[in-house]
Amino acid sequence: MHAMTPYQQLETRFARRGTLQEALAVLGWDHSAMMPSGGAGARAEQVSTLEVMAHEILTAAELPDLFVAAEGQNELDPWQRANLKEMRRDWLHATAVPARLVEALTKASLDCEMAWRQARPANDFAGIRPKLETVLGLVRETAAAKAAKLGKPLYDALLDAYEPDGSAAEIDRQFAALSAFLPGTIGAAIERQQSHPAPVQPEGPFPIERQKEVGLKFMAALGFDFDHGRLDVSAHPFCGGTPDDVRITTRYEEDDFARAMMGVLHETGHALYERGLPADWRRQPVGRARGMSLHESQSLLMEMQACRSREFLEFAAPILRDTFGGRGPAWDADNLYRLNTRVERSLIRVDADEATYPAHVILRYRLERALIEDRLQLKDLPGAWNDGMRELVGIVPPDDRDGCLQDIHWYVGLWGYFPTYTLGAMTAAQLFQAATAADPSIAPGLAKGDFAPLLGWLRRNIHNRASSVSASELLTDATGKPLDTAAFQRHLENRYLKD
Amino acid sequence: MHAMTPYQQLETRFARRGTLQEALAVLGWDHSAMMPSGGAGARAEQVSTLEVMAHEILTAAELPDLFVAAEGQNELDPWQRANLKEMRRDWLHATAVPARLVEALTKASLDCEMAWRQARPANDFAGIRPKLETVLGLVRETAAAKAAKLGKPLYDALLDAYEPDGSAAEIDRQFAALSAFLPGTIGAAIERQQSHPAPVQPEGPFPIERQKEVGLKFMAALGFDFDHGRLDVSAHPFCGGTPDDVRITTRYEEDDFARAMMGVLHETGHALYERGLPADWRRQPVGRARGMSLHESQSLLMEMQACRSREFLEFAAPILRDTFGGRGPAWDADNLYRLNTRVERSLIRVDADEATYPAHVILRYRLERALIEDRLQLKDLPGAWNDGMRELVGIVPPDDRDGCLQDIHWYVGLWGYFPTYTLGAMTAAQLFQAATAADPSIAPGLAKGDFAPLLGWLRRNIHNRASSVSASELLTDATGKPLDTAAFQRHLENRYLKD
Repeated sequence: MHAMTPYQQLETRFARRGTLQEALAVLGWDHSAMMPSGGAGARAEQVSTLEVMAHEILTAAELPDLFVAAEGQNELDPWQRANLKEMRRDWLHATAVPARLVEALTKASLDCEMAWRQARPANDFAGIRPKLETVLGLVRETAAAKAAKLGKPLYDALLDAYEPDGSAAEIDRQFAALSAFLPGTIGAAIERQQSHPAPVQPEGPFPIERQKEVGLKFMAALGFDFDHGRLDVSAHPFCGGTPDDVRITTRYEEDDFARAMMGVLHETGHALYERGLPADWRRQPVGRARGMSLHESQSLLMEMQACRSREFLEFAAPILRDTFGGRGPAWDADNLYRLNTRVERSLIRVDADEATYPAHVILRYRLERALIEDRLQLKDLPGAWNDGMRELVGIVPPDDRDGCLQDIHWYVGLWGYFPTYTLGAMTAAQLFQAATAADPSIAPGLAKGDFAPLLGWLRRNIHNRASSVSASELLTDATGKPLDTAAFQRHLENRYLKD
Repeated sequence: MHAMTPYQQLETRFARRGTLQEALAVLGWDHSAMMPSGGAGARAEQVSTLEVMAHEILTAAELPDLFVAAEGQNELDPWQRANLKEMRRDWLHATAVPARLVEALTKASLDCEMAWRQARPANDFAGIRPKLETVLGLVRETAAAKAAKLGKPLYDALLDAYEPDGSAAEIDRQFAALSAFLPGTIGAAIERQQSHPAPVQPEGPFPIERQKEVGLKFMAALGFDFDHGRLDVSAHPFCGGTPDDVRITTRYEEDDFARAMMGVLHETGHALYERGLPADWRRQPVGRARGMSLHESQSLLMEMQACRSREFLEFAAPILRDTFGGRGPAWDADNLYRLNTRVERSLIRVDADEATYPAHVILRYRLERALIEDRLQLKDLPGAWNDGMRELVGIVPPDDRDGCLQDIHWYVGLWGYFPTYTLGAMTAAQLFQAATAADPSIAPGLAKGDFAPLLGWLRRNIHNRASSVSASELLTDATGKPLDTAAFQRHLENRYLKD
């Protein structure tokens, strides 16, 4: 038996860590989709213990020397070099934060999540505030520790974990460009809509079993492999599990099938990315998805670009009509298209249309940055939320349930994450325009429910490349230029201001 | 902050191990109840990595010195002393077996289990034999390593992991006593049955949703807490999860509700034991259930002693009739009682009645002992199985599907486990007779669906005591004497040869 090289030793250690993270992903899915409430305490123990053990692998004393030695190995190929780079990134993040802080934040987040499940329907922000205060305190401690180690501002230090090499400065630049045209586009789209007869809502109820059937059928059309994944129910839809066992969730409402359907298509986009990651690099840092903006681009490309298109809704309309036994003009493809491309000033981010969605995200970005930077106190959050909604979206929530209690993110310790939704929407538009230009069979394929050409392009240009290069390189290689707002603007104008 | 005593250091280490084992229990449940087949490879990685990490905690170089130091601490209370004893037992088992062998056996077992899921319906023993050969080889290696370390015979060394301090000699003694009366009892019961008119089978189909409803209702009656557990479906029913989140499974057949119903009652017995373990000792060795015989005694006490009694079936009959919309004499309590206490020479252990079941177990015990001790080769297993069935049960399976392929145990590496089923049946009879004698409200309670008195007695005498004393002490404290066959014999004679 030969001794392992420094690089191989690192791969072995990171494989163990990757495997622990897979186990955590299964426990996380179970927590949201299966676990009875009384299991929460024991699950918190399990999760925090596994988190700490994964953390300990990164904080082992031998790692710095192994990095230096491995970086000196001349025979490494580009993927191995990229893997080493991602290992260092993980190590930097992990060693910035002491194990007791990781454990405390994990526990506080699980505790706060359970409370949020009660607090949101009860509209009780005051009740949950102490738990959120605990989470925020630990997040700010984490941000400070990372900022010192990474030499970045507080907010950037958090963002970097979700969006490698992202920065508030870049977000400010992109969001300023958005703000320059978005209010005008939203106003014009709403005005234009009002000059047409309103689309007709199909009449329910829509039995949950039928909705599930539709979801499964469309998942299959998009290319979801049920030998390697599942569809289940949870309070807050997500894509979890592992690349070999991708588990998406949704929630059903009997009086509206479109919400669950579009949610399923969205999560399927995430799932296809995970499933398309290269099997050869499973459980290694370089084998992971390339950041949250790119992840969100995959879900939004499927949901917003592909599945709210006229083409897809022509394919979907007869299936929906047959499954739900619908009759009349409400089930025509054109009516469904207009329903699914409606622009409206509304309260709930996850239900917002693609034109107003960025306004919700800009609000959250401003608020979380202010909370992190101690320019805003939690007791003032509901008021600041409502002020921001008035300014950015043009309406104010009647209560916190539809205000600052609506999103799970902050309550489970996800801070510095929100901007990736809108960066993802912009990326999706840029990728979709490049894909349809490169392969003329993609758009007509959607009208037949044939996603193979689109999925093939994404597999080659995005999924299979995992984290082997930066997000910006991936996007430039795939589309010919780095991220900007042009494609997103063109998409909105084509869809909402023309024909 | 005070420095930790040696005992406290051990508790901390074993708490981490116990937490890993809880995570493994959730992953194991998921594997059987939820996982799509394509997830098997990644799950094998996850499970073997967590097993190795749990194993590494036991093989840490500091442990032997910590044991000696902790054993010298005079201030330890009896539970702490017992905990220390169980820690040493775990350590002994773990250090006998090298990590690479633990990992190889885990992987081979998962691999073989997936193959068994195909091989059983395909009746393909020859096809799965190479994988089973691999598992058996690794099990024998494990047995040899443990036998050397524990100073026990090969079979006892395996048995000890399931039945602490059990021995083949003791099993031989108990099984000899059983064999002395069992054939006569079985023959007499069948003969006596034949002199009565046959009971009437209720006519199906019995929709799965209705069967599930019945299962949930009876689980609640027995005392199952759904804030701390679930009921799901798997190919081979089991009780999994953790004491705070106990998950049982069953499988449904539309033409027979009794099988799933009795299966659910059986697993509920296991679940109540887990749930009744003392919360103060969660994730510590002393807080675990006291061996597999005692575990099986809890399921069989519920299923065989309590729920196949006339009393319980009087409570159950109207519920079953209403739920399934049944009519006619098939739904009378007396008819249901006779159906659920039918003695028959049959092929499948899990469907066998309580009188013939021990014969199935004795066969498996003989075969697995011979395979472990290299007195039998796997290629000869199907023939030996059929010979044994002829001798012990009086009938021969037409194929391996209903022969040596029927049980999952050997294929997943569970060797030395089978005898605990029958030791458990004997223990159940002895406990139930002591309980009903001690509390005269128990038997009438069953007729009203009130299991609180029975559960209370079990909580105090068995569940809450966990592994604080030996199984034999538990049984002696609860019933006045160690295990013997008298109560089981009395039970069979009362139920099958009288009134």
